[in-house]
Amino acid sequence: MTEFRTERDFLGEKQVPAEAYYGIQTIRAKENFPITGYPPHPELIKAFGYVKKAAALANTEVGVLRENISEAIVQAADEVIEGRFNDQFIVDAIQGGAGTSFNMNANEVIANRAIEILGGEKGQYLMVSPNTHVNMAQSTNDAFPTAIHIASLHLSKGLEESLAELISALETKEKEFDDVIKMGRTHLQDAVPIRLGQEFGAYKRVLGRDLGRIKRAVEHLYEINLGATAVGTGLNAKPEYIVRAAKHLVNLTDMPFVSAENLVDATQNTDAYTELSAALKVHAINLSKIANDLRLMSSGPRTGFNEINLPSRQPGSSIMPGKVNPVMCEVINQISFQVIGNDHTISLASEAGQLELNVMEPVLVFNLLQSLSILQNGLEVFKEYAIDGITANAEHNKDLVERSVGIITAINPHVGYEAASRIAKEAIETGRSVREICLERGILSAEELDEILNAKEMTNPGIAGAKFMYQD
Amino acid sequence: MTEFRTERDFLGEKQVPAEAYYGIQTIRAKENFPITGYPPHPELIKAFGYVKKAAALANTEVGVLRENISEAIVQAADEVIEGRFNDQFIVDAIQGGAGTSFNMNANEVIANRAIEILGGEKGQYLMVSPNTHVNMAQSTNDAFPTAIHIASLHLSKGLEESLAELISALETKEKEFDDVIKMGRTHLQDAVPIRLGQEFGAYKRVLGRDLGRIKRAVEHLYEINLGATAVGTGLNAKPEYIVRAAKHLVNLTDMPFVSAENLVDATQNTDAYTELSAALKVHAINLSKIANDLRLMSSGPRTGFNEINLPSRQPGSSIMPGKVNPVMCEVINQISFQVIGNDHTISLASEAGQLELNVMEPVLVFNLLQSLSILQNGLEVFKEYAIDGITANAEHNKDLVERSVGIITAINPHVGYEAASRIAKEAIETGRSVREICLERGILSAEELDEILNAKEMTNPGIAGAKFMYQD
Amino acid sequence: MTEFRTERDFLGEKQVPAEAYYGIQTIRAKENFPITGYPPHPELIKAFGYVKKAAALANTEVGVLRENISEAIVQAADEVIEGRFNDQFIVDAIQGGAGTSFNMNANEVIANRAIEILGGEKGQYLMVSPNTHVNMAQSTNDAFPTAIHIASLHLSKGLEESLAELISALETKEKEFDDVIKMGRTHLQDAVPIRLGQEFGAYKRVLGRDLGRIKRAVEHLYEINLGATAVGTGLNAKPEYIVRAAKHLVNLTDMPFVSAENLVDATQNTDAYTELSAALKVHAINLSKIANDLRLMSSGPRTGFNEINLPSRQPGSSIMPGKVNPVMCEVINQISFQVIGNDHTISLASEAGQLELNVMEPVLVFNLLQSLSILQNGLEVFKEYAIDGITANAEHNKDLVERSVGIITAINPHVGYEAASRIAKEAIETGRSVREICLERGILSAEELDEILNAKEMTNPGIAGAKFMYQD
Amino acid sequence: MTEFRTERDFLGEKQVPAEAYYGIQTIRAKENFPITGYPPHPELIKAFGYVKKAAALANTEVGVLRENISEAIVQAADEVIEGRFNDQFIVDAIQGGAGTSFNMNANEVIANRAIEILGGEKGQYLMVSPNTHVNMAQSTNDAFPTAIHIASLHLSKGLEESLAELISALETKEKEFDDVIKMGRTHLQDAVPIRLGQEFGAYKRVLGRDLGRIKRAVEHLYEINLGATAVGTGLNAKPEYIVRAAKHLVNLTDMPFVSAENLVDATQNTDAYTELSAALKVHAINLSKIANDLRLMSSGPRTGFNEINLPSRQPGSSIMPGKVNPVMCEVINQISFQVIGNDHTISLASEAGQLELNVMEPVLVFNLLQSLSILQNGLEVFKEYAIDGITANAEHNKDLVERSVGIITAINPHVGYEAASRIAKEAIETGRSVREICLERGILSAEELDEILNAKEMTNPGIAGAKFMYQD
Repeated sequence: MTEFRTERDFLGEKQVPAEAYYGIQTIRAKENFPITGYPPHPELIKAFGYVKKAAALANTEVGVLRENISEAIVQAADEVIEGRFNDQFIVDAIQGGAGTSFNMNANEVIANRAIEILGGEKGQYLMVSPNTHVNMAQSTNDAFPTAIHIASLHLSKGLEESLAELISALETKEKEFDDVIKMGRTHLQDAVPIRLGQEFGAYKRVLGRDLGRIKRAVEHLYEINLGATAVGTGLNAKPEYIVRAAKHLVNLTDMPFVSAENLVDATQNTDAYTELSAALKVHAINLSKIANDLRLMSSGPRTGFNEINLPSRQPGSSIMPGKVNPVMCEVINQISFQVIGNDHTISLASEAGQLELNVMEPVLVFNLLQSLSILQNGLEVFKEYAIDGITANAEHNKDLVERSVGIITAINPHVGYEAASRIAKEAIETGRSVREICLERGILSAEELDEILNAKEMTNPGIAGAKFMYQD
Repeated sequence: MTEFRTERDFLGEKQVPAEAYYGIQTIRAKENFPITGYPPHPELIKAFGYVKKAAALANTEVGVLRENISEAIVQAADEVIEGRFNDQFIVDAIQGGAGTSFNMNANEVIANRAIEILGGEKGQYLMVSPNTHVNMAQSTNDAFPTAIHIASLHLSKGLEESLAELISALETKEKEFDDVIKMGRTHLQDAVPIRLGQEFGAYKRVLGRDLGRIKRAVEHLYEINLGATAVGTGLNAKPEYIVRAAKHLVNLTDMPFVSAENLVDATQNTDAYTELSAALKVHAINLSKIANDLRLMSSGPRTGFNEINLPSRQPGSSIMPGKVNPVMCEVINQISFQVIGNDHTISLASEAGQLELNVMEPVLVFNLLQSLSILQNGLEVFKEYAIDGITANAEHNKDLVERSVGIITAINPHVGYEAASRIAKEAIETGRSVREICLERGILSAEELDEILNAKEMTNPGIAGAKFMYQD
Repeated sequence: MTEFRTERDFLGEKQVPAEAYYGIQTIRAKENFPITGYPPHPELIKAFGYVKKAAALANTEVGVLRENISEAIVQAADEVIEGRFNDQFIVDAIQGGAGTSFNMNANEVIANRAIEILGGEKGQYLMVSPNTHVNMAQSTNDAFPTAIHIASLHLSKGLEESLAELISALETKEKEFDDVIKMGRTHLQDAVPIRLGQEFGAYKRVLGRDLGRIKRAVEHLYEINLGATAVGTGLNAKPEYIVRAAKHLVNLTDMPFVSAENLVDATQNTDAYTELSAALKVHAINLSKIANDLRLMSSGPRTGFNEINLPSRQPGSSIMPGKVNPVMCEVINQISFQVIGNDHTISLASEAGQLELNVMEPVLVFNLLQSLSILQNGLEVFKEYAIDGITANAEHNKDLVERSVGIITAINPHVGYEAASRIAKEAIETGRSVREICLERGILSAEELDEILNAKEMTNPGIAGAKFMYQD
Repeated sequence: MTEFRTERDFLGEKQVPAEAYYGIQTIRAKENFPITGYPPHPELIKAFGYVKKAAALANTEVGVLRENISEAIVQAADEVIEGRFNDQFIVDAIQGGAGTSFNMNANEVIANRAIEILGGEKGQYLMVSPNTHVNMAQSTNDAFPTAIHIASLHLSKGLEESLAELISALETKEKEFDDVIKMGRTHLQDAVPIRLGQEFGAYKRVLGRDLGRIKRAVEHLYEINLGATAVGTGLNAKPEYIVRAAKHLVNLTDMPFVSAENLVDATQNTDAYTELSAALKVHAINLSKIANDLRLMSSGPRTGFNEINLPSRQPGSSIMPGKVNPVMCEVINQISFQVIGNDHTISLASEAGQLELNVMEPVLVFNLLQSLSILQNGLEVFKEYAIDGITANAEHNKDLVERSVGIITAINPHVGYEAASRIAKEAIETGRSVREICLERGILSAEELDEILNAKEMTNPGIAGAKFMYQD
């Protein structure tokens, strides 16, 4: 049977499970917000541990927090960082109150653990108070954003690493497929030859820009508002505390945090998050396009493009025997859609900030951390289970190029666009080859055609057609 | 120590925990898609139970599935419906493969449980095969959408009930506040008097339309494509089976399902989901507007509008003593933002359907079921913890009306817009009252002013000013 | 040289071009909002004509507006309806002020024209005042929404007609292609046979549902708030006027308008617009999917699916001779993207309503009317220039089906999914046909295979495979 | 009566108005795409002039285009740049075909003008061919994106300047209002004091970051793909031409363009646009939040916050005399909503790129250029008509601070959060002042309270409360 202890706040009292490290305000939040059923992201819990530890150390150094209390808080915070109390963070990922419930959940867990460390019993807040001591010189409005910054940066680092590995895998394919000639397509219609390696090179490069964008987009997250307290004026926070708390965070996280130059600004604005989310969205758009391309190129096997083969990862149908689907690409598309939708939610939440604070941060951070996590998770399996194992159907691709009409473009400079159009039209209507028609009409000699219609040459800028003159 | 059994499919073999009811395809999916960490929604699992049960019963009736196997499948499906195997549904909410992994997870769990029931050991698929027997006459492409329809409808019913209760609570307030005169505002600027009850009446009515929209939007979900199999042509499904399977679903779920008239259409199109999500989005927009209004009206207590009081649900600040925030409204805003963002993801997923199938359904259904759940959850607490307990500051509101300039609008018909503008301007600049200026200038008598400037009368259409003539 | 007249309002005076029918408030708005450069939509201007005419007639009937003034206003409004003053509506499509500038532009144009009719000179507002007379018993907050309803409904009717014609064109193709067997695809991978007519039938049906949704979505637009005046309380509007004004609008527009039951609700809520826009968005998603499908099916001509041919509408490349692109599909995709983005803007604008009014209506209506217009425009050319002229490559499609592996699905019921998987795998790896392998292994006789592997039969639900038993 | 000339292409012939500079392909596009009625953005037309001029110069230098033709093309292009032929650009802003119709419209106008210059008659394309000469060594797929880059950069520069001026205006207000103490609000609830200047400083800073983001976001636009031709392989373009064409563009536009390192990448990816649009979206979110704040702060005059006054720009109501609304803020909100919706359309268009090309660029560029234009237009009037003229109600604001309960936060460090909460609760319930209760209870002396409750001091980080100790 669950035993309870009674806790009080200025609104009344509540029963708290005797064993729980959280307290009355967590209980209230749990009751108020039974929304998603999702707890806070583990990285956010961890980040609160860092914030509370840094604050306690700084408060002691500036002489406002007694050492023995500080030591107990620091030890409790370390245990939170280790993840030992993850099951005590029970408030919902989506909640009213601008994150006060996250912050108070952290304050209460750390206070009760600190009380234990000091030999007391949970709930004896005269020993260590969640508000007066654990939250000393802080407000939710600086502690929570600082924790979001830490968690976002931590996840971003992981994403950046996974993205770098994917880029490297694409570069490997760029080289591997450098000799694979295939038909380039625009509008899904046959255009002119291209090399498969060039396509993978294009994927590599756009994702390289994405990586650069993400790296730049997180830069503003290094500016934290710890010490801003309620509205950014730093009420109840000593300047020396602000400096020291930031320094401790740098040491604890090994990340180059600095106090934002202007704490009022840093407290009310959420552009650091929308900026990161926007970079993730741009990345998601590019990823989805690549996944679409790979699905197109691997379509078939017999009634599609059939240019490449994706690794077989799982039976593709519960009814169609032997069917295998491009599941790793499809999951990338879906992750992209989720990230784009999340960016929308984040934008709405950001726009809803009012005056000194954005109270919509919980839903914002829920979506931001999810985007970061699912992107990283997706990129890792996409690389390992899809990109690394792609093979090309080189012979088939070459064969299609040779049967194509699009190669006629290389003849343009010799006969002009209008005459070439007539040859093309005839080739399409009769099914005959461009070469054959040109020869028959005496437009170009066999030797000239060999040189001009060399598909490989056509894929090297400026080498093929361009060496001939347009001038009539 | 975990023991394992070996399972095989046409791609090779995998080790499956000996105790697991799921099998090799679930293992493959688990490995391929470590994306969100979220399992399928419990309502979706339950819905798969209904689908598999209905299919087994129908297959036996049309003579293609042996009775003893059918009975075992039915019993296993019943246990899935009861939620006994929820922990065996381990594939990720976001996955490639159009839901094949959800379907195969269900097929494997039910097959293995059926094997147990028949006295065999898990993995002995010659007794009951996940594909040949549990999935008989089905494809993921009909079984999964049918399950989505069941789950969505179940959650919609819950949402509709919660919304109806909220509407009823608003109606209570409409009546309660029928006498509370306050200043109406347009552009956040003082306009003309209105009654607080009228505002709550407007909220009630727009949510009433939302309820109607949601009810209409789910209608297409009653059309299911069970029996469509792979692409809607019903390959491998007997017509009689299709009829009987639908009938069983009706009995099992007590919902008026019918086979879609055209199964090819029903298999490739996802407009039933986008239609529902769009209705939820429209609802979310209206909810957010209402939450914004309540936050505005309760702003203060001393430096805001201070027209109404929301129930105090939790201390509002970790640093500011005595502060209480409109947290239940804020969570409604955030739920709304999430639902709007989810609708975006759903739209992207829907647009990405190609030819005979939409393979993006997993992310679509993840977002759709989440929207339904969090809306219902939010509405329940919003009603109970916010709306029910709202009180009005009637005296304060009345006082503000009397000090306002906006009431001059009622004088328009007597003096014309242009002359009234001059009085208004003077009132604003001098801080004097409209009544005072009118009297002083001899524009209207004290008695006339009493009648014309009666704030309560102004809130009744056509009663006040309009009884006087415009004609000069 | 432009001559000017001087006009005054309570904020001061402005020079107005002497010839202009608009006045000082239009001049102010023009100066304040040089945003898009787009004037109001012509349908919106026309709709204002109807509103002003109906109001004048009703005001005279209830005895507050003199007949001679009324007659002049009515004649001026008729001229606005005819489009004679479109060049006098110069305020920007995006503007602050909740449409007051649109309304005042209409009031001023009509007042000045009425003054002229009565023999006065423009600017002699003592004869006919834009506010006191033309705007009598109205506010922007009821006149503007009423005009939006009229304009939206008018455009919706046009859209509905064009959509109905497109649906009819798809039905023609459904029948025309009823015999064209092709490979069905799921995940862009070969699945099982389907008929091209079935695909066009699916397009027809989903657009049919779209049409139904649009028709239902406009229903709330028939409820107008004319007479609500400033905040919905009807201040300065006689009840009899409200009834008569609505009746006149019905007569003038031949649309079944009714006064909204609750004018406070109808004045502050914009869900009638978001509902319509959401229906347009769902439609746009479906259109874009169809356009994508057609682009896929017509991909090639030599290195794509090459199943159908779209009419050649224009040379497809400035450099590649003979290239023709699916431009009519591409424009449908782009219109869809615009409509989906517009829906987003509309949602943001709707959510931003506050208390008694939504002041963001100008941007909302700009996007809503644009969505209606470009959809109708797009559907008309899509039908005429794309759908009507589609032809099928029937032989090629049939050939691909016969070479496919997917037809093996029909063998499932005879040998079970697992054995069929082994045959499928061998067929894919060796390039041999399913039939050949089955025969060689003695799995089924030639006669059985003829019956089971009949592609046409496979496309008729329940006829082919399903007539055989699963039971082993 | 219009006279016509007959033109031909490989699809047939069309009648072209004899006076028109455009030709058959423009006529086809006009017929195919009657969508929005909007012509191309003037900056896009101008940009095409630059591209065609640069190409002609480079083609002549590398010896493939005769000098006399080149000179005529250059002169015609110069006239396009001057805007002399804007009325000849008649293809719709939304069109299929990846911009081929824009490009061909430009090619035809310039060819016909060049023919005239050379003494020929319009339509005599043997003299100057739109494809062979004006489009020499180009494809739509490189000419159009290059033109988009030029136009986007030009508009971005204008936007950056207007934004810089707005930032400067906010800085002026930051200083002007440095002494205006007001109540800070979080959750719209009274929090702790802040200075109005601090709020304007926060606006200034976030917009400063926006400016930085926009400047960084355009950087990738300096990389152009001119010379990529059809798919980025540079087929028919000499390497020397590519170098020289870029150099000419630099000279002509005075912008530091460079050839993209990898032209295949640069031709198929549209991330440079999504990146810029994302930066605009982030900016729009921040702008909308600021506009919302100003509307809140200026709400009233008698029943709102009434902290600041916005300049009166126009009468705010057609019915309520003397009403003035925050129209310049409202238009900023609406522009923001449009930009956010446009970003959505742009994202959809970008994700729809396939293989070597993104054919959805027309709708993308329509939205991108619109966003840039309306933001610049909006910022200019917002600064001039709103920000510059804001005044503060300093006395009223100060009065509200003094009556507030939130100032009790400063007492926390002296008595602890829990005791302070009890005082706060009493103050709220009784309406008494915090100071009074503290004195009465002997909690702090009058002198201490003077120092601690000094509102101005509370707004300076670390000065007020923090100088006292927390330690008990």
